[in-house]
Amino acid sequence: MAADAGRTDVPGNAFSVSATTLRALRTEFEQELFGNVIPFWERHSWDREHGGFWNCLDRTGAVFDVTKYGWLQGRETWLFSKLYRSVERNPAWLEMARSGAEFLRFKALTPDDRIPFRMTATGAPIVIQRKIFSECFYVMALAEYARASGDEGYLREAERMFRLVWSWAFDWTRVGRPSHRGETPLQSLAVPMILMNLIEQLTDGQGTPYERELEQCQLAFLRHVKPAERRVYEFVRPDGSLCPELPEGRQLNPGHAIEAGWFLQHWARRRGDAELSALAVDIVRWSHVAGWDDDYGGLFYFLDAGGHSPVQLEWSMKLWWPHCEALYAHLLNYSLTGSDADWALFQSTKDYTFGHFPDRTHGEWYGYLDREGRVSQSFKGGPYKCAFHVPRALLLCRNLLETMEPER
Amino acid sequence: MAADAGRTDVPGNAFSVSATTLRALRTEFEQELFGNVIPFWERHSWDREHGGFWNCLDRTGAVFDVTKYGWLQGRETWLFSKLYRSVERNPAWLEMARSGAEFLRFKALTPDDRIPFRMTATGAPIVIQRKIFSECFYVMALAEYARASGDEGYLREAERMFRLVWSWAFDWTRVGRPSHRGETPLQSLAVPMILMNLIEQLTDGQGTPYERELEQCQLAFLRHVKPAERRVYEFVRPDGSLCPELPEGRQLNPGHAIEAGWFLQHWARRRGDAELSALAVDIVRWSHVAGWDDDYGGLFYFLDAGGHSPVQLEWSMKLWWPHCEALYAHLLNYSLTGSDADWALFQSTKDYTFGHFPDRTHGEWYGYLDREGRVSQSFKGGPYKCAFHVPRALLLCRNLLETMEPER
Repeated sequence: MAADAGRTDVPGNAFSVSATTLRALRTEFEQELFGNVIPFWERHSWDREHGGFWNCLDRTGAVFDVTKYGWLQGRETWLFSKLYRSVERNPAWLEMARSGAEFLRFKALTPDDRIPFRMTATGAPIVIQRKIFSECFYVMALAEYARASGDEGYLREAERMFRLVWSWAFDWTRVGRPSHRGETPLQSLAVPMILMNLIEQLTDGQGTPYERELEQCQLAFLRHVKPAERRVYEFVRPDGSLCPELPEGRQLNPGHAIEAGWFLQHWARRRGDAELSALAVDIVRWSHVAGWDDDYGGLFYFLDAGGHSPVQLEWSMKLWWPHCEALYAHLLNYSLTGSDADWALFQSTKDYTFGHFPDRTHGEWYGYLDREGRVSQSFKGGPYKCAFHVPRALLLCRNLLETMEPER
Repeated sequence: MAADAGRTDVPGNAFSVSATTLRALRTEFEQELFGNVIPFWERHSWDREHGGFWNCLDRTGAVFDVTKYGWLQGRETWLFSKLYRSVERNPAWLEMARSGAEFLRFKALTPDDRIPFRMTATGAPIVIQRKIFSECFYVMALAEYARASGDEGYLREAERMFRLVWSWAFDWTRVGRPSHRGETPLQSLAVPMILMNLIEQLTDGQGTPYERELEQCQLAFLRHVKPAERRVYEFVRPDGSLCPELPEGRQLNPGHAIEAGWFLQHWARRRGDAELSALAVDIVRWSHVAGWDDDYGGLFYFLDAGGHSPVQLEWSMKLWWPHCEALYAHLLNYSLTGSDADWALFQSTKDYTFGHFPDRTHGEWYGYLDREGRVSQSFKGGPYKCAFHVPRALLLCRNLLETMEPER
C-alpha cells in the first residue's frame, strides 16, 4: 500500500497541480455539464404529457422506444432534484424533478410496492425484475426530491421504501427470485454498495439513524475486497471465500469496483476512519490498473480473474459509466492523497473520456464504444443510460475541484 | 422474387459448378467435421463420472465452468445420436449419446417436467428459464437417441414432453412467465420455428401425426415474413402486424431468419409446396443481404429495421452459428435453384466462415468474433455453444453435397 494512502485533507496550496490548472479544470467540467450535457436532457427527455422521462433517445434526442425504464426514472428525478438543490434554484429543474417524482410515486409504483424495470409511457408495468434496484433508485429519487421541494411526504415515502428494500436486500426470494437446490450461495457486491449509497442519499450524508445498517454493509462489502490480490470480486461466498470454479466467482467489473471505492471513501471520511479511507483509495487504484486496456486505452467492462476469456460478449467494450466513476474516484483520491500517481490516473482517465465519449454535434455523451474506442451504439439514452452517470460525475468533480482551489 | 426461386431437384449434371468442385467441397467438409470438430468434443466434453457433457471448455478444451447447461446437454446428445445413426455405427458415439440421454432423463429432468437452463455437474437445478427451449432440446435429443439406440421408451418420453411443450408454447405464463398489464402482445419467431424443427426431428421427417401442428406453425411463422420489405421480423403482433414503436418490434436477427428459412424449406419440400419453397429460398437470400457487413464481411448478429442503433451491445459481432446456418441454407438453395447467385452467396459465406472461425491449433471453431473478424472470446464451449451448430451444418452440407454429385 502506498505510504500516502489515506492521507486526508491536503491543504489547497499543497497540491502539486497548480491552482490555475485546478480552476481551468473546474471551468471545463462546468462547461461540459451545463453546456453539453444537461441541455440535451432538458430538451429531449421530459415527457410533459404523462410525466416522467423518455429514456430511449437516439443521437439527436428523438425517442426510439416509447416505453420507460424504472431505474432511469429514479435516476433522472434524483439528478434534477440534486441540480436544483446544489447548483441553482432553476424552476425548470424543480418542475422536471417533480414530474419524475410524481410519475414514480403515483403512476409507476405497483400495489405491492414494486417499481417496474420497464413500463408503458403511463406507468403500466411491462417487466418487473426479481431484483431490488428499481426500488433503490426510487428511494434515492424521492429522498433528494423531498429536500429539493421541501415536501416532507416524499422523504417519509423514501424511508418507507428503504425499509422494504432493506428487508428484501439480502434474500431476493422476497422479490420473487426462485431458489434452486443446485445454486452456489454467492453474495453480490452490488447489494452492500448500493445500500451504502442509498443511506448516504437518504440521510443527506449524516448516516444516523442507519449506523447499524451501514456497519452491516461495510462488513458485507469488505468480504469482496482481497488486498493480497489487489482485487475486488463481484461475487463471493457468504463467508467471503472465493468461488473460482464458476465464471461469476471470477468476475471482475473494474468500473463497478471503482464506483464502490468512492462510495466506501465517502463513508470512511464521514466516520473519520483513516484505515478504511486508505483501503478505499487502494480499491480505486487496483481496479484501474486491472481494468485499463494498455493497447487501446479505456477501461474494460468485464474481466475474469482466472485469465479466462470472459463469457460476457461485451467484455472488451468501453462504456461511459465506468469512465465517469473513475473520473470522480481518481480526483477524490488525489484530493485526499495529493499523490502524483493519483493525478496521473485521473489525467489519463480524463483524456480518454473527454476524447471519446462526448458528442459535440448533438450534445451528451455516447454510451458504448468498441474496444478500439469507436462508437458502437449511437443512442444517448437507452435501457440503462439516462441523465445520471455523466452529470453526476461532472457535478461531483466540479464540486470537489471547488474545495481544492486554494483561494476563492 | 427471382424467376428460378422454388425450382426443385436440379439434376446433378445441370449444376454450373463442376462435379469435381462439389466433390472437393464434400471432402473438405468431411475433413473439417471428422478431423477438426468432432475430435475436440470427443476428447474434452464427455463427463464420464456424472454422465452428460461439460459445456464450458476453453480454447484448449479445459473446463472453465463446472456447471452444465440444459440446452447444450440436449443438443450434444442429439448430435452424437445423429452421427451414430447417419454416419457410422461408432460405439463411442452411441456411448456418449446414451450418457447424455440418461443424464437428461434421470438427472436433469425435474419433478415438474422442466429441464434446467443451468445445473450442477450432477443435474441439480441452478437456473430454470421461463422459456420452453431447454425442453425443446430434450425432445430433440431423446427422439434421435431413441432411433440411434433402438430404445423405444426414449421416443415415448420425447413424445410426452413434446405434448407438454406444445401446451406451453403459445402461452409462456404456463412456464412461470408473469404477464403484466403494460405488455404489448408480441409473438416470437423462435416458437413456430423451433416447433417446426422439433416435429421434423420427432417424426424423422415424416410429419404425421403432427400435420395440424405443422399447419399452425406455418401460419404463425409466415406472420413474421414481410415479402414487400424482404424482411423477417423476430417479433410481430398476434395478427402479424408490425410494432415499430418498440425496439423488439424492429428487431432483425439475420442468422435466425436464415435458419428459419431452411427449417421452412424442409417442410415445404416434404409437402411438395413449390410456392412455400420459393418463399423459403427468398427468406434466406433477403436475410443474407440485409445482414451482411459490406465493410468487414460476415453476418451481423442484430439489426434494427428502422435504422436505429441496436440496443444489443453485441449487435455487430460475428457469431459462429449464423454463419453455420447460412452455409447450409445457401447450399440448400443452390441445390434447389441451380442459381449462380445462390452459389455466390454460399461461396462468400464459406470463405468468411472457414477463413475466420476454425482453430487449427486446438481444434473446433471459435464462437465469437468482433465486427472486424478478430476473436473476441477464445472459448470453444460456453453457455450457448457446444457440439451442435458447427457439426450439424458440416454434416448437413456434406450429406447434401453427396446427393448433388452426378456420378457416385
